[in-house]
Amino acid sequence: MQFELSTEYLDNLKLAVQNQDTETISAQLNELFPADIAEVLNQLPFEDVRYVYALLSEDYAGEVLVELNEDVQEKLLASLTSKEIAEQIDNLNSDDAADIIAELPESVQDEVLQQIEDSEQASDIADLLSYDENSAGGLMAKELVSVNIHSNVGQVIEEVRRQAEKVDIVYAIYVIDEKQKLLGIIELKKLIVSAPYTSVEEIYNDDIISIKTNATSEEVAELMEKYDLVVLPVIDTLGRLVGRITIDDVVDVIREEAEKDIQLMSGISDDVELQDKVWILSKARIPWLIIGMCGGIIGSRIISGYEGDLKIHPEMAFFIPLIGAMGGNVGVQSSAIIVQGLANNSVMSSNIWPKIFKELSVGLLNGFLCSGLIFLYNLLVSDSFGLTLTVSIALITVTLFASFLGTFVPLTLHRFKLNPALATGPFVTTLNDILGITIYFLVGRMLYSIFL
Amino acid sequence: MQFELSTEYLDNLKLAVQNQDTETISAQLNELFPADIAEVLNQLPFEDVRYVYALLSEDYAGEVLVELNEDVQEKLLASLTSKEIAEQIDNLNSDDAADIIAELPESVQDEVLQQIEDSEQASDIADLLSYDENSAGGLMAKELVSVNIHSNVGQVIEEVRRQAEKVDIVYAIYVIDEKQKLLGIIELKKLIVSAPYTSVEEIYNDDIISIKTNATSEEVAELMEKYDLVVLPVIDTLGRLVGRITIDDVVDVIREEAEKDIQLMSGISDDVELQDKVWILSKARIPWLIIGMCGGIIGSRIISGYEGDLKIHPEMAFFIPLIGAMGGNVGVQSSAIIVQGLANNSVMSSNIWPKIFKELSVGLLNGFLCSGLIFLYNLLVSDSFGLTLTVSIALITVTLFASFLGTFVPLTLHRFKLNPALATGPFVTTLNDILGITIYFLVGRMLYSIFL
Repeated sequence: MQFELSTEYLDNLKLAVQNQDTETISAQLNELFPADIAEVLNQLPFEDVRYVYALLSEDYAGEVLVELNEDVQEKLLASLTSKEIAEQIDNLNSDDAADIIAELPESVQDEVLQQIEDSEQASDIADLLSYDENSAGGLMAKELVSVNIHSNVGQVIEEVRRQAEKVDIVYAIYVIDEKQKLLGIIELKKLIVSAPYTSVEEIYNDDIISIKTNATSEEVAELMEKYDLVVLPVIDTLGRLVGRITIDDVVDVIREEAEKDIQLMSGISDDVELQDKVWILSKARIPWLIIGMCGGIIGSRIISGYEGDLKIHPEMAFFIPLIGAMGGNVGVQSSAIIVQGLANNSVMSSNIWPKIFKELSVGLLNGFLCSGLIFLYNLLVSDSFGLTLTVSIALITVTLFASFLGTFVPLTLHRFKLNPALATGPFVTTLNDILGITIYFLVGRMLYSIFL
Repeated sequence: MQFELSTEYLDNLKLAVQNQDTETISAQLNELFPADIAEVLNQLPFEDVRYVYALLSEDYAGEVLVELNEDVQEKLLASLTSKEIAEQIDNLNSDDAADIIAELPESVQDEVLQQIEDSEQASDIADLLSYDENSAGGLMAKELVSVNIHSNVGQVIEEVRRQAEKVDIVYAIYVIDEKQKLLGIIELKKLIVSAPYTSVEEIYNDDIISIKTNATSEEVAELMEKYDLVVLPVIDTLGRLVGRITIDDVVDVIREEAEKDIQLMSGISDDVELQDKVWILSKARIPWLIIGMCGGIIGSRIISGYEGDLKIHPEMAFFIPLIGAMGGNVGVQSSAIIVQGLANNSVMSSNIWPKIFKELSVGLLNGFLCSGLIFLYNLLVSDSFGLTLTVSIALITVTLFASFLGTFVPLTLHRFKLNPALATGPFVTTLNDILGITIYFLVGRMLYSIFL
């Protein structure tokens, strides 16, 4: 039942396009859902996309458009007339339609809106376009079922019947007053067991969670996750019901947030994908590489201060990579735990000392273990007891410092409303590298002067 | 409207618990939703949790239980009698109830099930318990509305009315045959506009996406995300409708998957949280630290092969950290892009050469830039042209190798059905460290023999 895109399938389709064999193309696509067709189109060369898209039935061309990768969607939209676009988004949900129109140049937006036949749809879209893309207003759709508080159950059922034609799933029946102010919600089961003449006022539930249009999409996601909501009503500053957000749109927000964290952790500054051009991919990475390089240069200055020592004890150089790697790894481990706790709200950024103390304990434990192991190794292998002791003492010190920084930096970033994931990336790693080298050579000089 | 947990609020509550001031406690909690109460309880010492929980109204004690952090929930369950547990999960949705019972020791599970008054609920829970927690069966709930294909619209409406009492939101009306086999779905709007004597067979839609009970929760998430589904019917091997999964449960799966990736990327092997005990946190990290340490030891062996060179040219040691850091950073950047593309299905793991070629281009571009910069820096600062040239040539070579490994390793892991996020962590970093040092000293020896 589920479609699996294969290279074979793609090759067959490309061949059919080459031969302009519209029958085979239609047959191949006919069985598929819009999301599947979009998956296929995403993999085709653009001339083929244009050709195949024109063959799609009007019933689901719009939905395919919504599902396409951003770059393909953009190119395709540029190749369609405003009338074609208007026709294809006429049947879409208002939020999807608004998302597509938002991708168009402003001059084209007006043209398309004017050509949408359903005037209610056009006005809904125009309304949605006024909100920031990353706000509750930008996420919501206008399709919902609402009833006046002064109506009765019989009237509500009539109203649901009327409005349900535009709505696929009746998630909730919202209760509003004359001024459109959101008052509460009617549960379906209450509606069904109540007599037709019962007033809405008697059966509605005023314990309702809503969100303002200007809330950020992260706030929307947090609220819906916390309260396990499938649908969330959106109100304006006057408390009037203006739309609703369903959880499936929030899934994308959650996915994007996680991706942003992973990119920050990996030292990639913009939202890029493998499909992007080489120089865009390069531009998103170069800042962090340069920061890392600056760290490397500082490291080289520090080591150069020990040039004389190195001439006498070149073996000190052997463990530079080990010390650096351990500091980096421990720092990333500590900050990942904190970043994750902050992301799922199980960690508060206030009261940071117990957390730092805990991470220091973990660091101490792991540091002892690792420096014990390397001590044994060096005892067996190395001729220099000075080096043996230096490596182990430096290692445990570095581990402690890295644990501290890995905990302190993300918590501090979070308190200053910056994304704590920044700390898990090259930033803390670079800091730990510099710290590690400093500690290593300091300890080394001290111990060599004692033991030799 | 939204509750914000403050230290002040917690202190007040703790004081009230100390004074056994049940009135204040009830007043403080009365206004809150179950998820809020759980958030409060998660922050209290356990004796207080037990005391406050006993004061909660039976209407939502069960829901609070569901929302508690795992460790608090576990302790609380252990302190309740099986009769108390049975009472509190009687009103829960079957999936939430089953999740709670699954936390109990097996002997207690049977006791609790036998004490649940609603026998249908008890049998639903027993049924759900038989599925693996991370499968579609483990995610699904039994509450759904289904109708026989041979009924007519009037009967369907009657059936919806009857079943809706147990169901909060009617997501879908499923059509089944006598053998419970899932045939399709009735859209609400079709139901509403059809005459009462219309047969279901005429109006139902057989284009329906479903999933087998034994599918993994990742497969469920992928399917629901791809097709923007709010609800997904679950069928057994005979195609019989046995439950449904709503997207809010899948949100947790998506969140957990992202967390797992971040942990793997950070070198943490188990699913741990800051709340866990020190030795558990330590155990989850030590394997990767030891791998990193082995990498460091290998590095030390390689450098020790150049001990003689280092005695003459100690300045070679200065740039060991820079070379290591750059290799690490470039490798992580490359693999993060690939891991993310694989996670959101925009990258296929077949056909890997174009991807490697692209990453190599990015690596070459960034490598040129960085090694150019460091070349200029060394020209100004360093006395040794041999070193200047060595660092720059090694840097660009390392960048290319790291780009290659960062692309190749996650794609290969994915082809062998391993989590590609593994590659973004200490694994590739360690590999790049070793490679970097090798290249650096090889290039160094070669160039020094030419230039000096």
